[in-house]
Amino acid sequence: MEEMELLQEEILELLENRKFAALGKILKEMEPADVAYIMDELPEEDLPVVFRILPKELAADTFAELDGDVQELLVTSFSDKELRAVMDEMFVDDAVDMIEEMPANVVARILKNTDPETRKVINTILQYPEDSAGSIMTVEYVFLRKDITVSDAFKRIRQVGIDKETIYNCYVTENRKLIGIVTVKDMLLAAEECLVEEIMDDHVIFVDAYEDKELVAEQFRKYGLMAMPVVDKEQRLVGIVTFDDAMDVLQEENTEDIEMMAAVTPTDKPYLKTGVFETWKKRILWLALLLLSATFTSSILRFFEESLAAQSALIMFIPMIMGTGGNAGGQSSVTIIRGLSLNEITMKDIWRIMWKEFRVSILCGVTLSIVTFAKVLLFDRLSLLVAAVVSLTIFATLILAKLVGCILPMLAKKIGFDPAVMASPFITTIVDALSMLIYFEIAKWILQM
Amino acid sequence: MEEMELLQEEILELLENRKFAALGKILKEMEPADVAYIMDELPEEDLPVVFRILPKELAADTFAELDGDVQELLVTSFSDKELRAVMDEMFVDDAVDMIEEMPANVVARILKNTDPETRKVINTILQYPEDSAGSIMTVEYVFLRKDITVSDAFKRIRQVGIDKETIYNCYVTENRKLIGIVTVKDMLLAAEECLVEEIMDDHVIFVDAYEDKELVAEQFRKYGLMAMPVVDKEQRLVGIVTFDDAMDVLQEENTEDIEMMAAVTPTDKPYLKTGVFETWKKRILWLALLLLSATFTSSILRFFEESLAAQSALIMFIPMIMGTGGNAGGQSSVTIIRGLSLNEITMKDIWRIMWKEFRVSILCGVTLSIVTFAKVLLFDRLSLLVAAVVSLTIFATLILAKLVGCILPMLAKKIGFDPAVMASPFITTIVDALSMLIYFEIAKWILQM
Repeated sequence: MEEMELLQEEILELLENRKFAALGKILKEMEPADVAYIMDELPEEDLPVVFRILPKELAADTFAELDGDVQELLVTSFSDKELRAVMDEMFVDDAVDMIEEMPANVVARILKNTDPETRKVINTILQYPEDSAGSIMTVEYVFLRKDITVSDAFKRIRQVGIDKETIYNCYVTENRKLIGIVTVKDMLLAAEECLVEEIMDDHVIFVDAYEDKELVAEQFRKYGLMAMPVVDKEQRLVGIVTFDDAMDVLQEENTEDIEMMAAVTPTDKPYLKTGVFETWKKRILWLALLLLSATFTSSILRFFEESLAAQSALIMFIPMIMGTGGNAGGQSSVTIIRGLSLNEITMKDIWRIMWKEFRVSILCGVTLSIVTFAKVLLFDRLSLLVAAVVSLTIFATLILAKLVGCILPMLAKKIGFDPAVMASPFITTIVDALSMLIYFEIAKWILQM
Repeated sequence: MEEMELLQEEILELLENRKFAALGKILKEMEPADVAYIMDELPEEDLPVVFRILPKELAADTFAELDGDVQELLVTSFSDKELRAVMDEMFVDDAVDMIEEMPANVVARILKNTDPETRKVINTILQYPEDSAGSIMTVEYVFLRKDITVSDAFKRIRQVGIDKETIYNCYVTENRKLIGIVTVKDMLLAAEECLVEEIMDDHVIFVDAYEDKELVAEQFRKYGLMAMPVVDKEQRLVGIVTFDDAMDVLQEENTEDIEMMAAVTPTDKPYLKTGVFETWKKRILWLALLLLSATFTSSILRFFEESLAAQSALIMFIPMIMGTGGNAGGQSSVTIIRGLSLNEITMKDIWRIMWKEFRVSILCGVTLSIVTFAKVLLFDRLSLLVAAVVSLTIFATLILAKLVGCILPMLAKKIGFDPAVMASPFITTIVDALSMLIYFEIAKWILQM
């Protein structure tokens, strides 16, 4: 990262001094992702200049990696000829990604400057739902007939391969239906006169175009796939998803889960590119909802207000009890949510999980109530009875928190919600109310309030 | 997933009725990862039976995918001959992964049944630190000399390719030093008599064997790499990391981040395979630490105990204020932590981030204090002054929480800690104390307590 920042400074300096030749020399040795990283941070007015310095292929690859707002700025500054050149070089799936983020008038201009065949393909992909396999696929793959020889297959790859995203997996089709897969490795290791159907693998892992892209990405990881064919309802091959896109989906889904767990509505924009008002919108609904849910806990405290005023020593332990409950519940819920999203646990494990969480909560409860008892007695120097109330409450809260923490995410999954919503903030709110109820009931019983 | 469960039941039934032929037929059509998924759940005594039904190559691939404890059980049940057969078929990097989780006596037996050359390689890889690129690399790659022709390169690939994890990226070396990379695609599209050095790319993205594997995985995603060469201090090629392992690392690191954010010490064992005592150990230290940190908040409440007893209506808003502060701080901290781990934000952005969080917190603060004011006045039917105290506190808490939430993770990163530790539980504990201080100061001022 530090290297990149030094490079960034150097590039800014060259730009300021209008040393374009030197700048071009540096840029042309860089990876597209790195050029994009630097361009994303450049002042608007420098963008077209820098982009025009890039060699054609690097320019197209870099363009595909840029943030949506930078892409839009560039497209607006392009002549029709420049736009056509970029569109010719870009892979179709990258073009679709870009178009999805553009306003309608820019999209119209882009499509006008795309060759008719590509335009048709782009329009087809755009029709798939946002989170589907179809929306992240590309159509730039190699397909073969089963009755050709390996040497003919190589001839075909040499003819069409240059524009394909991957040539290493070739798909065998019959009347457009997917019937097998053959890798370049298999073909290299086979005899030249061998037929494709003799060496193809007819156990293909494929996916329906309408399948959730998250599931597709998870399959890439599970099976270590390089590419995955996408088929329509009639099992006709319509495209492929490549591993680099799957990796991006995986990382996006992780970000989405993490944001949801922290009660933030997910977006796919990077933090620094999201406006203040937009960030506010992503956060405020959850904050307001959780704030209003705290009303339950408030009512409980209000109900016991007078007893609390009489036994005012009890007030100081409210944050400790609520905090511990929230943390303990959060630990369980997040562990379960993660297990669910990695498919390590499924609904049928619910009893095993509850039994395990119950035993863990007993262990945690015993440990923490001993710590609490000692602390209240020795550090806070309060009575034996108060110490008993607080440490018993901690014990009961722990057991409850861990059970709520493991049941709620599974329940959410069961009724079709995203379990990630049932993470710490939500669990905390519920456990807050329950723990206070426990606290005052135990206090009433032991302290006779 | 449901399909897998049905399959699992079918397999269990076949096993029970000792219908091994039918069982073999089903298993041999399955993917290694799926066989492993089912075997991980089988009763111990059935494991060796099922494993012996599998065809040789599927057996080795499945073995590599099994959980550590199941692998250990199987190795113990293997004859030396069986063990040798599995070791011969496994890729070196998978063998290393397995060995890393075994007790010493099992490792000794495994290495005794491995051919001497592989054993040497395994021992070399085992010496790299646990989280390094070296520890996840494989040595099964193709290397070429720069002065051979494309057709000779293909001859070489045909000779050695069958045992290599990938043949699509070939590495060009000179005196063992990495000088370039050439892909099978480049070679297929080039003339047969072309020299490797004419078409090789000498801008190779490589990594030092001691580099952090998380960084390696991040580069795979950034550059969309299929494989990445690993070099030693003298830039000699020592191995390659393949994209499937990078994807696993990415997912492991995500799990680790998520666990740390929920105050759980990360492990790489799946939830259901982790014992009760072990789970307790992963959670209790954090719970105890956070419980004891709540002492600060307790002291503040204790200090104001008498005023609180006098103005007992204030008690009921404690959970709401603390909860909102924790949620608001958690939102910011988790967003920043994720941005840091995706390299979307760096230390130099700290002022931009603080300025943005400040503006977001003003917006959130205004919204929530209006909601609070209305709620206290109309729903709780308390006085105008109390409503003012509570809503002012919410406003101030929000601004503070969001600033603490964005500063602490960056501070942690600066001093070399993992920012993920500074997520909700930790932030909550700090914000709890600060918000109570604000609450009582505002109450003292407005209510003249």
